[in-house]
Amino acid sequence: MIIVMKPGASTDHVKGLLERIEAKGLKALHMPGAERVVLGALGDERVLAELHLEADPMVESVKPVLAPYKLVSRELQPHDTIVRIGAASFGGGRFGLIAGPCAVENEAQLLGSAKAAKAAGASVLRGGAYKPRTSPYAFQGLGEEGLRLLEQVGREVGLPVVTEVIESGDVEIVARHADALQIGARNMQNFALLKAVGRAGKPVILKRGMSAKIEDLLMAAEYVLASGNDQLILCERGIRTFETATRNTLDLAAVPVLKAKSHLPVIVDPSHGTGIRDLVTPMALAGAAAGADGLMVEVHIDPKAALSDGPQSLHPDEMLELGRKLAALLPLLGRSL
Amino acid sequence: MIIVMKPGASTDHVKGLLERIEAKGLKALHMPGAERVVLGALGDERVLAELHLEADPMVESVKPVLAPYKLVSRELQPHDTIVRIGAASFGGGRFGLIAGPCAVENEAQLLGSAKAAKAAGASVLRGGAYKPRTSPYAFQGLGEEGLRLLEQVGREVGLPVVTEVIESGDVEIVARHADALQIGARNMQNFALLKAVGRAGKPVILKRGMSAKIEDLLMAAEYVLASGNDQLILCERGIRTFETATRNTLDLAAVPVLKAKSHLPVIVDPSHGTGIRDLVTPMALAGAAAGADGLMVEVHIDPKAALSDGPQSLHPDEMLELGRKLAALLPLLGRSL
Amino acid sequence: MIIVMKPGASTDHVKGLLERIEAKGLKALHMPGAERVVLGALGDERVLAELHLEADPMVESVKPVLAPYKLVSRELQPHDTIVRIGAASFGGGRFGLIAGPCAVENEAQLLGSAKAAKAAGASVLRGGAYKPRTSPYAFQGLGEEGLRLLEQVGREVGLPVVTEVIESGDVEIVARHADALQIGARNMQNFALLKAVGRAGKPVILKRGMSAKIEDLLMAAEYVLASGNDQLILCERGIRTFETATRNTLDLAAVPVLKAKSHLPVIVDPSHGTGIRDLVTPMALAGAAAGADGLMVEVHIDPKAALSDGPQSLHPDEMLELGRKLAALLPLLGRSL
Amino acid sequence: MIIVMKPGASTDHVKGLLERIEAKGLKALHMPGAERVVLGALGDERVLAELHLEADPMVESVKPVLAPYKLVSRELQPHDTIVRIGAASFGGGRFGLIAGPCAVENEAQLLGSAKAAKAAGASVLRGGAYKPRTSPYAFQGLGEEGLRLLEQVGREVGLPVVTEVIESGDVEIVARHADALQIGARNMQNFALLKAVGRAGKPVILKRGMSAKIEDLLMAAEYVLASGNDQLILCERGIRTFETATRNTLDLAAVPVLKAKSHLPVIVDPSHGTGIRDLVTPMALAGAAAGADGLMVEVHIDPKAALSDGPQSLHPDEMLELGRKLAALLPLLGRSL
Repeated sequence: MIIVMKPGASTDHVKGLLERIEAKGLKALHMPGAERVVLGALGDERVLAELHLEADPMVESVKPVLAPYKLVSRELQPHDTIVRIGAASFGGGRFGLIAGPCAVENEAQLLGSAKAAKAAGASVLRGGAYKPRTSPYAFQGLGEEGLRLLEQVGREVGLPVVTEVIESGDVEIVARHADALQIGARNMQNFALLKAVGRAGKPVILKRGMSAKIEDLLMAAEYVLASGNDQLILCERGIRTFETATRNTLDLAAVPVLKAKSHLPVIVDPSHGTGIRDLVTPMALAGAAAGADGLMVEVHIDPKAALSDGPQSLHPDEMLELGRKLAALLPLLGRSL
Repeated sequence: MIIVMKPGASTDHVKGLLERIEAKGLKALHMPGAERVVLGALGDERVLAELHLEADPMVESVKPVLAPYKLVSRELQPHDTIVRIGAASFGGGRFGLIAGPCAVENEAQLLGSAKAAKAAGASVLRGGAYKPRTSPYAFQGLGEEGLRLLEQVGREVGLPVVTEVIESGDVEIVARHADALQIGARNMQNFALLKAVGRAGKPVILKRGMSAKIEDLLMAAEYVLASGNDQLILCERGIRTFETATRNTLDLAAVPVLKAKSHLPVIVDPSHGTGIRDLVTPMALAGAAAGADGLMVEVHIDPKAALSDGPQSLHPDEMLELGRKLAALLPLLGRSL
Repeated sequence: MIIVMKPGASTDHVKGLLERIEAKGLKALHMPGAERVVLGALGDERVLAELHLEADPMVESVKPVLAPYKLVSRELQPHDTIVRIGAASFGGGRFGLIAGPCAVENEAQLLGSAKAAKAAGASVLRGGAYKPRTSPYAFQGLGEEGLRLLEQVGREVGLPVVTEVIESGDVEIVARHADALQIGARNMQNFALLKAVGRAGKPVILKRGMSAKIEDLLMAAEYVLASGNDQLILCERGIRTFETATRNTLDLAAVPVLKAKSHLPVIVDPSHGTGIRDLVTPMALAGAAAGADGLMVEVHIDPKAALSDGPQSLHPDEMLELGRKLAALLPLLGRSL
Repeated sequence: MIIVMKPGASTDHVKGLLERIEAKGLKALHMPGAERVVLGALGDERVLAELHLEADPMVESVKPVLAPYKLVSRELQPHDTIVRIGAASFGGGRFGLIAGPCAVENEAQLLGSAKAAKAAGASVLRGGAYKPRTSPYAFQGLGEEGLRLLEQVGREVGLPVVTEVIESGDVEIVARHADALQIGARNMQNFALLKAVGRAGKPVILKRGMSAKIEDLLMAAEYVLASGNDQLILCERGIRTFETATRNTLDLAAVPVLKAKSHLPVIVDPSHGTGIRDLVTPMALAGAAAGADGLMVEVHIDPKAALSDGPQSLHPDEMLELGRKLAALLPLLGRSL
């Protein structure tokens, strides 16, 4: 339920209502706005009815949240949420560029790639230390050693870092080294992991699963917010369809749909979304034009030697060129890098 | 096979080779370029081998076309084909905007919508006279009367017109009234119809089928070119996937893929591609950013009264706004309206 | 609308009602049952309301058809329709086996394959004369010569024949040679063709399109029935999904869904549905177990020499074995070959 | 690599080879057969080449495993693996029926449902204690209390029990109470969890992910086998496609494909595969006819009161009827309940 207070409602009055909601075992939300205070109450609506909130003299209206997701919904929170990773901002007109190699391989590879990202205007460095790989015999990432390298190189080039966490048990150590935690597509409905990152106190990037409907993605985000973390960025990275010319089908219409339904920022990953280097730049620009609040792009100092995802990683000069094009395009689209 | 001639090859020599190719029952192609002449020979390659073209003193090289499509392939024809519908051009850096109502309903509706299209910068007017409808009980279009209205209104506002043809038997009458013929998604593999429009001598817009791979679309285009018509525009209009938040999933990565594989111009239809008015403008801009050579957009003077596709038709003022945004964006993308 | 008459309604009374319905420009249906007569009225329901049929003393009830399809719906026609092709029957507990080569290639190939089909218990011979091929350079079928061979061989082995028609203009000649007309998956929404076969007076087999929902298939069938032909068999032949291990994904759940929603018989084509010979027999048996009223199977006297679809065609001995297994299984499933 | 020994190879000789393989850091497999011993060596094949095994006098042949999966492949292990859960067997001609409610709700519900399962011939009882739910606000299962109830009721009715584990940290406690561990579709590529169940020493049922290709499923199974557990059953439970008439599209062709590529048993879940009660029985029979080694079916003592998946749960009498039909059908298909 969304409870809109009348303009003159006092802080004490609001506090009293929140306490009454919580006393019934419901989750109470406090959302003060410029003009009036809005409260939320999540849980069994029959219980809520017993409070007769609509009869309160300072309550203007009580209305249900129609969507199955609540905390992520624009119904409940009409203003854009801005998510900050270090000095980078996503949402509310701010556009963030996340770039780096698929996997952390060694210091030279990471540093070279990070410098290429930084030169192109990236505001966050990415790099995988724990890699979810289809085959048990493929390179599985450097693990903790990779986390340490990532943190060190991020500091060296002056960029905050984001990396994927694939297991609840790893959340603590990843959160110790990284500025933001990424949930990969294969784990989008690993609900135990969603709850764990929700409690970790770091911004989260949640990637859409390969067969996840837009509503499924928002429900997965709801798990994170319901665990106490609203610093969450949604990421469109392609869905699985019958088309085989590209690795996935990048569903860019998901960007304006997500932004209409949710207040959370939305970014696009054209690298996984296409799987083909030559398509990364056009689809990055298309993502920006579709209204994305940022991009996540793979760049590698030497793509042909990459231990994973080489064919979709940009060369440093291509990364630079993408940065230039974005810088020219974004102001026309009402956003800034 | 692609036969590249040496720089000094005389016209007579080339003509002789073309005659020898045709005498073997193969299709011969003559593609004079700025620096040298290229010939094509399509058909049974064992027969071609009997000509021993590589032994001809003026032949520089003979190489196979690797793709299953030949005439539409960039291997055979490396330069962009520019397709012209009236004064509008598509391809080679020229961007065309096709707009109009889904269906021709009556003169007032069509004229009002056409003026809105024209005001927004459209260079071609669209409108359906024969409508392929899922239900036999739905409005099936005005037929010949619709064609006459379309031609008349096009002349009145000064725009060439394109309309869909759904049956081989109708190709002649549609070609009499329209400046370009459209093949709809449901007929993309109606091979009899593809051959008929190939012989009609008018530019063709070929829409991708809902379950067509990019290669299937190119093979369908090959039918048209093999029937003698190379004035063909490919149109991405969304594929069918599990996602239900949008009517179709607009596969914008298909744009750079198609342009890499083929010399034909590629346009995007964000109206059918999303089915939702509010998504049309962001996806139109995204299509342009992805590299499209044009757009096909539905606009209606009064969408809520439309006999078909009202929910995805732009209002005239939204159309105008889209035109403005495109005009600002395209120069940055190296194309002009 | 479905109009249920009271038990004692006279023939004249019913006739009078039908005339009143038609006088309003609606389509009137007469469905006499064992216990009582049911009438149907299709068209603008506001017009129907003007007749005040519920006030007629011999009318028991008037209720709407909820599905978007009407004539194909079980709401309107609760009893199984039995479709007959020559001596073969499909539906209402009767199971028909259609078999033969993908394409008619020559007399020896067709006759050998037809004998193999007959020996295995097939009741209808299939064979394509007009082949819809993805590539314009592939074998397109023998055309009219193929029709003649098919008719001749069918007579020789004593089986009725079915063949695909791909173009409205060909319906007449195909109907002259064949006992039933097939609409292929690519033409499932070629509405002009659906209307043409609806008027041809021969049983129709309608294949589900590769991206057609079950409801789309029923709407396509409605076109045929609305054109005056209710001898129609629905055919599940696989849909296009992300899975590439099989040519298509055979959606066997469509069989019980279709049979619940429609009175029309449903068959399964495991040859196109899988594209792989070794999968044809298990999926044929699975189709029967799922409740199908028949099968359409490709058999070729020499699959490795087939001009099309060799990899999915059964060898004659495999066909024989399939026939044996079906004969054992069907009685347990309440159906007979 | 697969190393086939000559018929007379001594145990000591074989042991020596295995030690040499392991000394190189490769995984060595010992697969004694009726006629001859086969060894496997997994890992970097360049390292293996250094052993020059083909020069060993008792080695008949050395050949690569072509598939990306190794331990699950029929290339490496040609004979059917039989997986045993309590007294139930799956594979090698033995057919197992797993039945029970979606979730453990309380003792009465579980006991009633378990008796219905047992009466119908089920050999394993299923019931979820940890439920992966799309919404954080939906019933998430009884947790450990559910495990205890499941174990107790299983003992009471005399059936082994299987339940889902959704988090690595829960594997130990689940393995303490259950006879087999289930990995759900959403966790099919939760590689940390796959490794954990691989080490748990209990049989595993691995469900195919909603967007998993058959090869992805086999690669996920490879994770479990590579962790030391070859008692694994593959489960087809429907994939996500554009069709919305059913909850998922049950891909029954996956059954014969999986059985051709792997030695592991394959079962079908028609409950999740369709989501609709009336489709469960026909698709269960179809699964058996397609060659499955077993079924997993949801039955509930009172489906309309179920806390989850009520619409797809069989009533006890429907379960009984399914058991009767299976008992009649299976002997014809060469398998026994």
